[in-house]
Amino acid sequence: MNEHEKEEPVFEIAVVIPRRIVQEKDVDCDCVNVLVQEFRKVGFIVERVHGIAEDFIKLAAHLETLGRAAYELQIKKRTHIGMDLQFQVEDVDAFVRQPDGSIFSWCERFQCYYHLIYGIVNSTGSTMTLKFDGNEFRWETGENLLWKLESVNIVKQVFPLHDEKKRHKLLKSWAFHWWNFTNQPIDEIYSYFGAKIAIYFAFLGMYTRWLLFLAAFGLVLGFIDFGSLHLVVLPIFFVVVILWAVMFCQFWKRKNCALLARWFIDSSATADQGYKIPDSKESLLSLQDELIKLLETDKMKGKKVFQRYEWLGRLMRFRNDAIIIISIICLQLPFELAYAHLYEVIDSDVMKFGLTALYLFAIQYVTQFCGKVSVKLIRYENNESTEKRADSLVYKVFGLYFMQTYIGIFYHALLHRNFLTLRKVLVQRLLLSEVFENLLENTLPYFKYSYKKYRVRHKKREKGEMTGKIQFTHRAEKEYLKPAYKASIGEELEDGLFDDFLELALQFGMIMMFACAFPPAFAFATVNNLMEIRTDALKLLVILRRPVPRAATTVGAWLNIFQFLIVMSICTNCALLVWLYDQEGKWSLEPGLAAILVMEHVLLLIKFGFSRLVPEEPAWVKANRAKYATQAQDMCSKKLLRTISGEVAFGESKKLQYHKDSFFHQSIDRKED
Amino acid sequence: MNEHEKEEPVFEIAVVIPRRIVQEKDVDCDCVNVLVQEFRKVGFIVERVHGIAEDFIKLAAHLETLGRAAYELQIKKRTHIGMDLQFQVEDVDAFVRQPDGSIFSWCERFQCYYHLIYGIVNSTGSTMTLKFDGNEFRWETGENLLWKLESVNIVKQVFPLHDEKKRHKLLKSWAFHWWNFTNQPIDEIYSYFGAKIAIYFAFLGMYTRWLLFLAAFGLVLGFIDFGSLHLVVLPIFFVVVILWAVMFCQFWKRKNCALLARWFIDSSATADQGYKIPDSKESLLSLQDELIKLLETDKMKGKKVFQRYEWLGRLMRFRNDAIIIISIICLQLPFELAYAHLYEVIDSDVMKFGLTALYLFAIQYVTQFCGKVSVKLIRYENNESTEKRADSLVYKVFGLYFMQTYIGIFYHALLHRNFLTLRKVLVQRLLLSEVFENLLENTLPYFKYSYKKYRVRHKKREKGEMTGKIQFTHRAEKEYLKPAYKASIGEELEDGLFDDFLELALQFGMIMMFACAFPPAFAFATVNNLMEIRTDALKLLVILRRPVPRAATTVGAWLNIFQFLIVMSICTNCALLVWLYDQEGKWSLEPGLAAILVMEHVLLLIKFGFSRLVPEEPAWVKANRAKYATQAQDMCSKKLLRTISGEVAFGESKKLQYHKDSFFHQSIDRKED
Repeated sequence: MNEHEKEEPVFEIAVVIPRRIVQEKDVDCDCVNVLVQEFRKVGFIVERVHGIAEDFIKLAAHLETLGRAAYELQIKKRTHIGMDLQFQVEDVDAFVRQPDGSIFSWCERFQCYYHLIYGIVNSTGSTMTLKFDGNEFRWETGENLLWKLESVNIVKQVFPLHDEKKRHKLLKSWAFHWWNFTNQPIDEIYSYFGAKIAIYFAFLGMYTRWLLFLAAFGLVLGFIDFGSLHLVVLPIFFVVVILWAVMFCQFWKRKNCALLARWFIDSSATADQGYKIPDSKESLLSLQDELIKLLETDKMKGKKVFQRYEWLGRLMRFRNDAIIIISIICLQLPFELAYAHLYEVIDSDVMKFGLTALYLFAIQYVTQFCGKVSVKLIRYENNESTEKRADSLVYKVFGLYFMQTYIGIFYHALLHRNFLTLRKVLVQRLLLSEVFENLLENTLPYFKYSYKKYRVRHKKREKGEMTGKIQFTHRAEKEYLKPAYKASIGEELEDGLFDDFLELALQFGMIMMFACAFPPAFAFATVNNLMEIRTDALKLLVILRRPVPRAATTVGAWLNIFQFLIVMSICTNCALLVWLYDQEGKWSLEPGLAAILVMEHVLLLIKFGFSRLVPEEPAWVKANRAKYATQAQDMCSKKLLRTISGEVAFGESKKLQYHKDSFFHQSIDRKED
Repeated sequence: MNEHEKEEPVFEIAVVIPRRIVQEKDVDCDCVNVLVQEFRKVGFIVERVHGIAEDFIKLAAHLETLGRAAYELQIKKRTHIGMDLQFQVEDVDAFVRQPDGSIFSWCERFQCYYHLIYGIVNSTGSTMTLKFDGNEFRWETGENLLWKLESVNIVKQVFPLHDEKKRHKLLKSWAFHWWNFTNQPIDEIYSYFGAKIAIYFAFLGMYTRWLLFLAAFGLVLGFIDFGSLHLVVLPIFFVVVILWAVMFCQFWKRKNCALLARWFIDSSATADQGYKIPDSKESLLSLQDELIKLLETDKMKGKKVFQRYEWLGRLMRFRNDAIIIISIICLQLPFELAYAHLYEVIDSDVMKFGLTALYLFAIQYVTQFCGKVSVKLIRYENNESTEKRADSLVYKVFGLYFMQTYIGIFYHALLHRNFLTLRKVLVQRLLLSEVFENLLENTLPYFKYSYKKYRVRHKKREKGEMTGKIQFTHRAEKEYLKPAYKASIGEELEDGLFDDFLELALQFGMIMMFACAFPPAFAFATVNNLMEIRTDALKLLVILRRPVPRAATTVGAWLNIFQFLIVMSICTNCALLVWLYDQEGKWSLEPGLAAILVMEHVLLLIKFGFSRLVPEEPAWVKANRAKYATQAQDMCSKKLLRTISGEVAFGESKKLQYHKDSFFHQSIDRKED
């Protein structure tokens, strides 16, 4: 497998350059030639492709090239003794291989590519003059080539390419494998898309599998008439639903742990490390490094400064959250209520339709604006890693979507106090979200892609460069025209997973919070999710460009949102039960008693929520520990690696070899069969 | 400091042997002589003391001797690079020193002593005949000497000795340092008593310091008449109390983390490792080792077996907890209610007194019996370490005490629905517990000690061996007569800390659950705790034998009990507020609504409690991780140690040296000043 890989590496990255008009005569000065030369110098295998509208430089790399980058990036990898050590090319045998037999995961590979591509500087010692389409510009000593070319718009984009062989295999075993229901080849998804996307699909699969049970229960409740027993069955259903949800969340955590253990990912390390993109502003991270240095030189003072830094960061985050919550309550809530009320009041269907269109148009912009504001606010928080920052964004934006989705339902429910109306609204929403969103999610990117292709063809024809039917023959160009996997709230911090998770969370909230009002909703959700698995797979494999892999190893903020929705649903379902039992409205609650009950609930929430606000480990202890761990690993890294790789290679230690013998070769053999 | 220590080690362990009647002529066969010789061979410094009733062998050890034992025990210690590595005598410079300048902590020292003392076997290759007081017995080849001597009752006990110098220092700086209020020399307590006891006192100190605020608030509420504002101030007090408690628990966790970081204890490692006493049954632990081996050879099967083992253990624990809870509800609750009711009904004071005496007498035995049953039940659980088993015991026994303490108060409160009666009961209980318990706790051991001394003197006089005033001149004998620090529920799994923590938890429950009924209770508790700090210190330093150190590094089960009490107090205080506002009993609650509310509370509790029941990490992942960590450490241990100690000794690396330079020498200097 390894040998095989070395023979023909797959092209995984494409660099887009404009299609040139004039070919330079002086080859040495030609900008693209220089770029290709530099790429070759770095160790890439380069292939140039002339597309219809653009030219492409496809890059592939041998293990040695990637290994060098990994060494420079100080990437830590799992070794056969279970410890994560810094990668070194010579001791490659010491490291555990991925489930697909390669040394580096897709995320690591991408990091290495990125490092190598954006690491090219002018090291000749003299300024070079580069030419492109007759324009000249100077490449100064020590200047970064890619930055330069991007600034003068010669390099238009750098994006990851699909691996056709693996993609077709996945299409067959995953996207078109409908009769597999919730089962998915998670290991292969992980190899191809990285941990974060694989975790999403594992979560979706487990969630849907667990939902089957409630779907059956819900259908029984929905279609069998229990008569007077109805009032007993419904509370039982409610209790079962809540127990189900609580257990699901906890067992998902276990599943996540098991998955990470299978992929040899150390969850704590990855969370700390994060995925560093060279151009991101790391002023906050470097501040932390400075603080650690201070802690070394002056323990007492360092501790104090560190504590101030920790609490300041928390204060900032608290302030930001307060801003978001207040603006949601003061700005969004009236708006949503106004829409719901107007919709209720207006009689004419045409007016209703117009109102909804206006509303949908407005919230599009509101959401995007809010996303941008949140991103700006988050800049001032000192979250440890990019993924933590993304989580912070998710919490903030989810508040908005929560209001948007549920306030209308709450309004209807409160206004009518009628189960039938509520059910009608729920069915509408669920069907709408199922059909509409799935349709939109999959057709919109396709139309975008088609439109882009049309534009390119149109331009070419206009200029008279080409006539007749224009075919896009090169894979790289087709992928370049495909839309990227990005979030609706903006590209910073989050990618398309945001929308997919959001859809899931809103659905979860809808079926959980009104479980007692409409038990068959669970069946709707199940069917939807079964479809979702395959359509999302298709979207990722066929319609979209290959996404940039992310380092996150958990569902992140979304699990907490699920937990929050469970607590909410306990309260809302109790309210629903009260309505159900008290249809004549005879039950009354003294205002004093109600106030005390509200206070009790708030206090209980604070009791259980506070531990999330203040971590158990002070920041200086954590920083110290992280520093020590790195230090220890750095110290023993080289010596240890030699020992491990030696032992593995010569089979001196049976104990260490079982990985390769039993587990890996088995899985590799299985795939090669 | 180190040199100083090497010159004159302190005698820390005493072995008790009966005072002999006949001196053996053949010195080589004399049992005690052989024992002393063997001790010397091991490397101990031995001193024999002839007491009045017993003889004592006092043992001390040089660093080299202890180091050898530590090496054999594979004790892991923090090195200067922050990693825990196996101890090795040659590389002693690589290891971080304790706050008092010594290499080993008291807990580690004790473990080493124990290992050395109980590691003496007959290695001469031939059976030896030992004589004692004319009796002969055979010491077979490979037989353990101490076990043998204990079985024939020649070695009566092995117990840790007080270190007079440090004890006097602590007496001055801690037990008699009243005006220091909640401040205590925690580092010195840690050096002298080990982590668990130091953590207790740190907890007690912080709890009391935080209580001061509520005590002031409570006193203001108790003695200033707010008139009609009363109904507003009380809920505010309630909210403040709950917030205070929630914050206290979280900040205590942070404090605990900081303490462990200061003492260079790796909390995760110690929890896994536990403190292994040679004679404890380790069948369950070895089962786990076997499972890990299975996991290595056959991943899939091992995982399955491991999961079955994990869930079986959880089931057993659940069953045990269910047994305890059901028996408390079915057996104890009626009994307690009967007592409370009888006490209420009976008019005659004499009868009341008799009843209470009978009751107190009965619960003594009930508690001990329940403790024994719990210990038996826990044997069948697969808790990972001794400390986890102790936690399991604490949960079970606390249920009993909870009922015992509060059911009477609940009964009174519910019966009378009267704040004044409730207050009276609370004051009675608080005063009673303060005066009575503190008195009992401190005088009982002293009386026990005095009685023991009297018994010894009496015996001697009876036999006519001695006349006149008999003085106990030897420190070792005095300490032998002192009572040990043991729990009231039995000596297995828990020591005297159980009673101290129990007192604290019951007090916390009392003041928190009825906070609204009697705000000045917080002042009572504060005064009590301020006294408690010093009296507990006195008890440990003067009245009791030096306790056997425990490896636990957290408060353990008690913090969870505190958290549970906070949740309880949210509910009880809400009920109290309802009574307060609704003194005429006009407020009513439909039974249906009440049922729904109860269901809601139960579901919320399940939601927040379930994560404790099922851990996030499956057992096989955890076991794998632990195994890998050990493996990695073992592999790099020797090489790394050489490197670190070299660097530290020759000052090659400034980075690693700051520990010794700035922190340690500072603290040592401070103490030597």
